Amino acid sequence: MRLSARNQMPGTVVAVTRGATTSHVKIEVAAGMIITAAITNEAAEELGIAVGRKATAIIKASDVLVGME
Amino acid sequence: MRLSARNQMPGTVVAVTRGATTSHVKIEVAAGMIITAAITNEAAEELGIAVGRKATAIIKASDVLVGME
Amino acid sequence: MRLSARNQMPGTVVAVTRGATTSHVKIEVAAGMIITAAITNEAAEELGIAVGRKATAIIKASDVLVGME
Amino acid sequence: MRLSARNQMPGTVVAVTRGATTSHVKIEVAAGMIITAAITNEAAEELGIAVGRKATAIIKASDVLVGME
Amino acid sequence: MRLSARNQMPGTVVAVTRGATTSHVKIEVAAGMIITAAITNEAAEELGIAVGRKATAIIKASDVLVGME
Amino acid sequence: MRLSARNQMPGTVVAVTRGATTSHVKIEVAAGMIITAAITNEAAEELGIAVGRKATAIIKASDVLVGME
Repeated sequence: MRLSARNQMPGTVVAVTRGATTSHVKIEVAAGMIITAAITNEAAEELGIAVGRKATAIIKASDVLVGME
Repeated sequence: MRLSARNQMPGTVVAVTRGATTSHVKIEVAAGMIITAAITNEAAEELGIAVGRKATAIIKASDVLVGME
Repeated sequence: MRLSARNQMPGTVVAVTRGATTSHVKIEVAAGMIITAAITNEAAEELGIAVGRKATAIIKASDVLVGME
Repeated sequence: MRLSARNQMPGTVVAVTRGATTSHVKIEVAAGMIITAAITNEAAEELGIAVGRKATAIIKASDVLVGME
Repeated sequence: MRLSARNQMPGTVVAVTRGATTSHVKIEVAAGMIITAAITNEAAEELGIAVGRKATAIIKASDVLVGME
Repeated sequence: MRLSARNQMPGTVVAVTRGATTSHVKIEVAAGMIITAAITNEAAEELGIAVGRKATAIIKASDVLVGME
């Protein structure tokens, strides 16, 4: 399925932290560049998210803030 | 100001598209990895966002979806 | 690509309104139930979104509010 | 209170999963179409969200992604 | 309709900027404290949003970042 | 770092509730006006968020809904 989200960064899962309902998934998308996603435990289980697996971090443009020094 | 957002990717502005109220800002955060942000024109002007300037793409973990093949 | 988003509703595009940078896409996901998405014009063009085509409305659980009478 | 959110789907609560701070609420908005919302436990308690009660799933257009095959 | 959103700030509309598809609405919620909302033109028209009218700014807890010096 | 987010409300932390992965932080931004943020525990620890400390609630305009009576 192709997505409207402008930001789709393929990478590798490097950490998964499971909470009571929410899991935090860290995906290395470039050398030293790690994206953290907060998703439901249900999703993490359904997708079989585990360290070492390929995964894509997906972000809508409207969810990106810009910072300037 | 330090931020709670887990995803803060420094880079360089490579494109700015201005609409009637919304601007799309493209930031290259790694070789060939471009993040698109949709922000208000007001913000784009206030921050002086322009091609070639340093900028950071900032994303909350709860706004990141995960995709798996 | 399988997605972590808990809400994925397949339907048919029934309207597309294009703005300066943002397009509004209406997708009928059930009889009389229409979901409105605001996406970038870039995405609308890239995906070839047009009235009559099949499309899926995708929403993260953390982006859903609940209302009660 | 009338809301600016373009997506307001009335339905019935079919499941509530309570975590340490976050609750997942599943609302059936059409036959076989279930929306999952992630809200705070505080909100779930305050609103008295329980299985069988009427509830509306509310989603801003800017939080809807579109997928196309 | 009672809402799960933890942040509901009543105030007065002090400015409305209409774009091609998106309107920016500024609501004064306390002396000198103005909240800017980006909503669809469709919503702005449907709700009759205009300067001087009472309005409530509504924000999910999961959409709030925290900054610290 | 200056931010594109239109809503930046400085205040004082009045409560912190820690969950398994998510913390809820309440910030008083005006007399009797408290903003609740849901952030990762990782962020809460990293920033040293604690009751009594100065903090800014940061919200993108596109994450603000408007309600009208």
